Amino acid sequence: MSDSLQQRLFQELEALPLIDPHTHINPHAAASKSLGDIMGYHYYTELAHSAGLAKNKIEEPGISPKEKVGRLVPKLSALENTAQYAWLIEICREFFNFEDDRITTENWENLYDQADKVLGQSDWEQQVLKKSGLEQVYLTNDFDDPLEGFDTSLYVPCLRTDDLVFHLTKSDVRERLSKATNRDLGSIEDLQAAIRDLFTHFTKNGARACAISLPPDFSPTLVPSGTVAPYWSQLGRGEKLNEAEAAQLSQFVFWQLAENCVVFELPFDLMIGVNRRVYENGVFQGQDLYDKRTSLIQYRDLFNSFPQVTFPISVLTSTSNQELVSYSWIFPNVIANGHWWYSNTPPYIEQDCRTRLTAIPQTKYVGYYSDMYKLEFALPKFRMYRRILAKVLAQEFVVDRGWSEKRAVELGHLILRGNVETIFGR
Amino acid sequence: MSDSLQQRLFQELEALPLIDPHTHINPHAAASKSLGDIMGYHYYTELAHSAGLAKNKIEEPGISPKEKVGRLVPKLSALENTAQYAWLIEICREFFNFEDDRITTENWENLYDQADKVLGQSDWEQQVLKKSGLEQVYLTNDFDDPLEGFDTSLYVPCLRTDDLVFHLTKSDVRERLSKATNRDLGSIEDLQAAIRDLFTHFTKNGARACAISLPPDFSPTLVPSGTVAPYWSQLGRGEKLNEAEAAQLSQFVFWQLAENCVVFELPFDLMIGVNRRVYENGVFQGQDLYDKRTSLIQYRDLFNSFPQVTFPISVLTSTSNQELVSYSWIFPNVIANGHWWYSNTPPYIEQDCRTRLTAIPQTKYVGYYSDMYKLEFALPKFRMYRRILAKVLAQEFVVDRGWSEKRAVELGHLILRGNVETIFGR
Amino acid sequence: MSDSLQQRLFQELEALPLIDPHTHINPHAAASKSLGDIMGYHYYTELAHSAGLAKNKIEEPGISPKEKVGRLVPKLSALENTAQYAWLIEICREFFNFEDDRITTENWENLYDQADKVLGQSDWEQQVLKKSGLEQVYLTNDFDDPLEGFDTSLYVPCLRTDDLVFHLTKSDVRERLSKATNRDLGSIEDLQAAIRDLFTHFTKNGARACAISLPPDFSPTLVPSGTVAPYWSQLGRGEKLNEAEAAQLSQFVFWQLAENCVVFELPFDLMIGVNRRVYENGVFQGQDLYDKRTSLIQYRDLFNSFPQVTFPISVLTSTSNQELVSYSWIFPNVIANGHWWYSNTPPYIEQDCRTRLTAIPQTKYVGYYSDMYKLEFALPKFRMYRRILAKVLAQEFVVDRGWSEKRAVELGHLILRGNVETIFGR
Repeated sequence: MSDSLQQRLFQELEALPLIDPHTHINPHAAASKSLGDIMGYHYYTELAHSAGLAKNKIEEPGISPKEKVGRLVPKLSALENTAQYAWLIEICREFFNFEDDRITTENWENLYDQADKVLGQSDWEQQVLKKSGLEQVYLTNDFDDPLEGFDTSLYVPCLRTDDLVFHLTKSDVRERLSKATNRDLGSIEDLQAAIRDLFTHFTKNGARACAISLPPDFSPTLVPSGTVAPYWSQLGRGEKLNEAEAAQLSQFVFWQLAENCVVFELPFDLMIGVNRRVYENGVFQGQDLYDKRTSLIQYRDLFNSFPQVTFPISVLTSTSNQELVSYSWIFPNVIANGHWWYSNTPPYIEQDCRTRLTAIPQTKYVGYYSDMYKLEFALPKFRMYRRILAKVLAQEFVVDRGWSEKRAVELGHLILRGNVETIFGR
Repeated sequence: MSDSLQQRLFQELEALPLIDPHTHINPHAAASKSLGDIMGYHYYTELAHSAGLAKNKIEEPGISPKEKVGRLVPKLSALENTAQYAWLIEICREFFNFEDDRITTENWENLYDQADKVLGQSDWEQQVLKKSGLEQVYLTNDFDDPLEGFDTSLYVPCLRTDDLVFHLTKSDVRERLSKATNRDLGSIEDLQAAIRDLFTHFTKNGARACAISLPPDFSPTLVPSGTVAPYWSQLGRGEKLNEAEAAQLSQFVFWQLAENCVVFELPFDLMIGVNRRVYENGVFQGQDLYDKRTSLIQYRDLFNSFPQVTFPISVLTSTSNQELVSYSWIFPNVIANGHWWYSNTPPYIEQDCRTRLTAIPQTKYVGYYSDMYKLEFALPKFRMYRRILAKVLAQEFVVDRGWSEKRAVELGHLILRGNVETIFGR
Repeated sequence: MSDSLQQRLFQELEALPLIDPHTHINPHAAASKSLGDIMGYHYYTELAHSAGLAKNKIEEPGISPKEKVGRLVPKLSALENTAQYAWLIEICREFFNFEDDRITTENWENLYDQADKVLGQSDWEQQVLKKSGLEQVYLTNDFDDPLEGFDTSLYVPCLRTDDLVFHLTKSDVRERLSKATNRDLGSIEDLQAAIRDLFTHFTKNGARACAISLPPDFSPTLVPSGTVAPYWSQLGRGEKLNEAEAAQLSQFVFWQLAENCVVFELPFDLMIGVNRRVYENGVFQGQDLYDKRTSLIQYRDLFNSFPQVTFPISVLTSTSNQELVSYSWIFPNVIANGHWWYSNTPPYIEQDCRTRLTAIPQTKYVGYYSDMYKLEFALPKFRMYRRILAKVLAQEFVVDRGWSEKRAVELGHLILRGNVETIFGR
C-alpha cells in the first residue's frame, strides 16, 4: 500500500465538517482560557502523577493556572511517548504557533504567554470551532441543568443519568431532583413522574440522547415498582438501604430511563465498564479503572425488552470490543459507538476500527467522539482517529478489496458523520 | 515485504485441493438451487435484519426465493463493508459471471436469473466442487441420520451431539434416540448402550469425528451413572428435572461421548462458547451470541482424563484464542481448529493465525473449515483464509526468518490440508 | 516505512549492553555444559511432548544428555514454525557455527559435538556474557539460598517468595525457613521475624527485588495476625488447614512481604496469572496453564495500601495487557514489566509493546527480561524483542510522529535498560 494513498484518503476525511456526539463541554465556558485549562485535562495531571509528581503539588489549593503548568512541565518529558502528549503538541502547534517538538522548562513560559494571547481573543470560541471543523457539539448535562443561556442547536443537550441510577440513595441527589422537577418525591410514583419530567425538559430543549456510564458488574433487569416502593419510603424516612436494596433501586431507575427513551424517542448511550475511585488517592478524574471481566450478555434482557430504543454502546476495553462487534451484528438496536477512554490510543483504535468496519453493517458504527472538556481537543483527537480510519480504509477496502478511493471516502464519511446524523438526529 | 511475494504464496496455496473438515452441508441437496439459497444464509438475513429489515419481511411464510432476495437486496447497501458481503460478491463473480461491484435494486434480477441458469445445470454440484477444489466435505449429522443415499467418501459423516448432551430432557429427543437405536431407554444402561450404538452406526459409515457446540459456562467432569440413574427414571416417568439435575445429566452424557471416542478412535470436535437464543426475536440462526467470560481451564479434567482422544477445538472469540494457543502448546491432545463464526472475519483470523503459527507445533493447527450450508461458500471463505495465510507466511517466515518460499508454501499446505488428513484421517 | 529504517534502529538497540532483570540462572552453573542443557529447556521438551513424543522417552531416568537430544531431534521438525525453535537455531548459529536452517537426524550429532567443544571452554561463561552484551543478570533465589560463592554484583540476588506464600502449610518448607533463619517458628511473631530476617539477608547480599508468581484467583488483602495465629499453631501441632484457612495464611504472608518491601526499599515483582500443574502428566515445567478470567482489580487494596512500594508487574496473557497498561497509567507504583511466558512470542509482544509505548509514561515500562535458565538464551530472546521494539519505534514514532531516529533510539534505550536501572537500581 502506498503511503500517498493513505494520505489522500486522510485529506478527504479532514475536509468533512464534524458533529461531535459526546463531550463534556461546558457551553458557558467551552473554550480554554489559558494553557492551564488545556494541561489541567486529567490526561496530563494523572500521567504526570503516575510518573511521580505528587498529587499535592498538582492540586495545591490557590495556585494559579500558570503555577500549575510550571509544575507539570518538568514531568512532561516522561510522557513524550504517549498519544496524549501528541494531542498536546498538536494543539500547541495548530493553535499557538508552537514550533518545537517538546515542551520544556526552557520554552514553556513563552508558550504559555503565546497561548494567553490566542485564547484571550474575544472570538476564540468561534475560531476554534471553525478551525476544528465542528458544526455541532453534544454535551453531557446533569439532570438538573436548566439548559439555559446557550445555543442548543450548536451545543446539543444530552441527559446524563449516572446520578439518578447510582446516587439516589444520597439525600442531596434526591433534593436536586425534587428541586429540578418541583415535585415532592414521597412515593415511587412521584419518582417516576419526576424522571418523566426530566425527559420532557431535556427533549423540549433539543436533547438528542440519554447517557450513562456503568460499572462492570451492572446487569439491568426489570424490577417492579412494588419491590422498590418500600426502599424508597425507607430513604424518605432517612434510613439507609443495604447493598442489595440499593442495587434493585438502581435497576428500577435504569429501566425507567429506558422506558422514557421509548416514549421520548431518544437513543440511550451506554458507556460500559468503569469502576469509580479504584485509586483513591489519585488526582481529580484520575482515579477510575476497571475489571475486564464484564460481558454484554448482562444486557440481554435490556436489548430484548426495548427493540424500539437505539443503544449506542461504548466499551472501556479492547477485550470487550469483539462482544460489541458481535452484538451490533445481531441486535438491530445495538450500535458500536466511538473509542472510549482507555481504548482511545492508536493501537487499540486501529484494531477495534478494523474489526468493526469488516463485520458490522456500516450504518451501525459511530466512528468517534472526542469526550473533551475543552474545545481545543477536538482537532487532535479527531485527527488521530481520521489517520487511523484512512489507514484502515486504504488497506482493507482500496487495496484488499479493490474499492475506488471515492467509495472508500464515502464509507469514511458515513462512519465519521453520516451515522451521527442518522442515529442521534431524531 | 513485496506484495508480489504474498501474491506468489497465495497462488501456490490456491492450487492445493481441499478437504473441508467442518460444514453443515446436506448431502442430498449440497449445492444451491437459486440465489435465494445463497442469500438465505443466516449471515445475510441476520445482517439485513440488524441493519433494519423487519424479521417478518424476511421470514414471511410462503414467499418465493426470488421474492425473498428482492426484499433483502435494498438492505445490502448497508452491508457492503462487511467480509460476509465480500463472500457474496465473490460467489456472484466466480460462478454467475457477475461483473458489477455491488448488488443493487437495478441489477439483482438479472443476477438472479443468471444464477438460476448456472445453478439449474444438472451437473452443477460436480462443477462447484471442482471449481472450488473440494475433494472431501465433512458433514454435521444429527445422531439419528440414517447416513444413506449419498457417497460417504465424498461427504464424510460426523456425529453431532448437541441434542444428546443438552436436550435429552425433551421427550421427542429421547424418542428419536430410541427409534434410531431400536432400543427401549428405560435404564441408564440402556442410554449408554444407545449412545454406543450411534458410534457403531456412524463409524461403520465412515464418520471421522464426534462434534458438539458448548455454552460458555459448560464444564465437563465425570458424573457417576449412579448419580444420574434416578434422574433418568424421573424423565422416563414424565417428570421434569431441575437445573442442577439436568446439568449433571448433560455432564454424564458428555463424558460417555468422550469414552466412546476412545473406543471408536474418533476425534472429539469441541466448539466452545456459544449461548443459544440470546436475541429471542432474531431471524433463523441469527439469535446466538456469547459471554466472553469462559476459560479452557473448565476442560482441564477432560483433557487430563482422555489422553487418547484428540480434541480439535474451536473458540468463538479472539479473546479466547491465546488460551487455545497455550493449551495446544502444552496438551498433546488439544488441537487449534479453524476460525469460527464471530472470529471468522479477516482482522481476527489474521491475529489468531499469526499467534498460532508462531507458537504451536505446526502439526497441531487445522487452518480452516468453511462451516457452510451450501457448497458455493467454500470458495470465497477458503480464499479469504488463504489470502491471510499467505500474508502471515510472507511476513513471519519468508521476510522475518529468511525462509525460502518453497518452505513457507510447505508449511501452508500442512496447515490447509496435511493436518486435516493426519488428525481426522484415522 | 522503509525496512532500512527499522534495520538501523535495530542495530542501535543491539549495541546497548544489557541488564537482564529476571532470570532463573543458577550462578554456580550459569552457562550450558552441552546441547542437552539447551534443548532440555522446557520450551523444547514440552513442545516435543505436545507434538507427540512420550514423556517417558524424554524423562527416562539415567539417559545421557546426548541420548536425550537424540530423542528430541526427530520431533523438532514439528516445531520449526515456532518462535521457540527460532531461538534454538539462533543459538546454534551464533555460538556453534551451525550453518544449516534446520536441526535434523542427519546433522545433529555434528552439532552436538561442535557445541561440546564450544561449551567446554574454561572461559565460556565469560565469552557468552560478552557476546550477549550482558552486564548484569538478576537471579531468582529460593528464600533459603545462602547467596554465597558467586559475584553478586554480576549475578544479582532476588528473593523468590512463592514457597513462603503458598507452601508454608508444608512442614518441609517451614523447616527450611526455620533453618535458614535459625529461629523457632512457634508463634506468628516468630514467622514475622523470620520473614524480616530473609529480607535482611537478601538485601545485605545486594538483592534488588522480592518476586512471586501468583495464580489467577489470588486477591491480596490485609489479614490481621490475630486471625492467622491459631492456624499457625495448628500447623505447628501437625494439623491441616482447610482451604479457607490456608488462603488467609497466604494473604497474611503476602502482606508481610509487601510491608518488608517498604522497610527494605525493594520493588515487589508480581507475575500474575499462572495455575500450576494443570496438565498433571506433562513434562517437568511443562504443566502450567491458566484461567484468563483474572483482573488487576484484585490488587486494588495492595496498590492503594503500599504507595511506597514499586510493583513491576508481569501478566501471563495478552488479554490482561490492557489492564496493565491502564493500571500503570493511573497508579504511580505500578510498572509494566516485560513479556512473560505465554505472551513471549512475537505477535503478542508486538501488540503489547505498541500499546504500552503509546499510553504509559516512558519511565514505567521495563521492556524485557529473558526468564532464562541458561545464559545462552539471552541473546536470541533479547534480539527477538529488539527487532520488535525497532519496528514499533520506526512505525509509531519516526514515521507516524516524525521523530528523529536519534530520539527514537533514546526511547528504545530507556525501555531496554534505563528503566531497569532506575526501577531496580535502588
